[in-house]
Amino acid sequence: MDFTENTVKSELIFDGKVAHLYKDEVSLPNGKTSFREYVKHNGAVCIVPITENGEVILERQYRYAVRQELVEIPAGKLDTPQEDPRLAALRELKEETGAVPEELIYLGEYYGSPAIMGEKIYMYLAKGLKFGERHLDEDEFLDVFTMPLEEAVGQVLDGKITDGKTQAGILRAALMK
Amino acid sequence: MDFTENTVKSELIFDGKVAHLYKDEVSLPNGKTSFREYVKHNGAVCIVPITENGEVILERQYRYAVRQELVEIPAGKLDTPQEDPRLAALRELKEETGAVPEELIYLGEYYGSPAIMGEKIYMYLAKGLKFGERHLDEDEFLDVFTMPLEEAVGQVLDGKITDGKTQAGILRAALMK
Repeated sequence: MDFTENTVKSELIFDGKVAHLYKDEVSLPNGKTSFREYVKHNGAVCIVPITENGEVILERQYRYAVRQELVEIPAGKLDTPQEDPRLAALRELKEETGAVPEELIYLGEYYGSPAIMGEKIYMYLAKGLKFGERHLDEDEFLDVFTMPLEEAVGQVLDGKITDGKTQAGILRAALMK
Repeated sequence: MDFTENTVKSELIFDGKVAHLYKDEVSLPNGKTSFREYVKHNGAVCIVPITENGEVILERQYRYAVRQELVEIPAGKLDTPQEDPRLAALRELKEETGAVPEELIYLGEYYGSPAIMGEKIYMYLAKGLKFGERHLDEDEFLDVFTMPLEEAVGQVLDGKITDGKTQAGILRAALMK
């Protein structure tokens, strides 16, 4: 059965710097209509960087939306919806951690909250890392540290690492070995 | 270092049925101020239901925010922010799949898009399933099906399953065995 919901009317409620909130009227599979509230987003990238010692590079960062510091893999927004996500991944990894990878392996898409967020995240595995300077954005504050991949897997399974892309990325890296 | 961002001023931009969008002015660790756009949410639950044959129960559902059908584990919103997530998990699992578990194991929190979404998802593993009737919400349309857990793990690693909580939930269930 085709569950596609077609747009009857689209209304841009708020056109922010990051969030573009819409309330659309849609037609449902049963012929009725309903409303969908959702946030449009340019898209983003995240990277699971694995060092030659088998450690994963992680960041501790305050996330205001959830009012706490989270441990996350490096990630960042696309500059424009058209930006090549591969280049964005290389840029964000370099800016946040200083690392430049010899291998950047595409792991596929990640939708973190598809009931309401349009954000598509392109996920990559980065290996063969060389380190240079890092250059954070002006209002970006984060600590970078490394952890053995097995320990990170343990922290995901124990519920200590709660960021979704980090859970998925670490477990994928561990299972791909 | 403490990266906490404190609220200077909070503005409710849109108070929707599901999305409550705020634009807050915050103080940064360097003493400057900036703005954070984010969506408040009551919270939600998701469940990895494993049958006695080692199969995971999945759903195919149209997600308007990303304009495609996604394969997901059962999930649903809390009715109120105060609702016991354990009861919400039992309710959503029963409504969507008809299953009632003998064991409901809490796996911890999942933040799908913490840069912008305040949504906290409580993740559970459900085992010892008995099946009854299902009762979908009026504007909920989804197909329920099962897949061997190993096959689901393969589909996550191949990038075929793109929903974040489903990636994290399936891999966690596989690694916990």
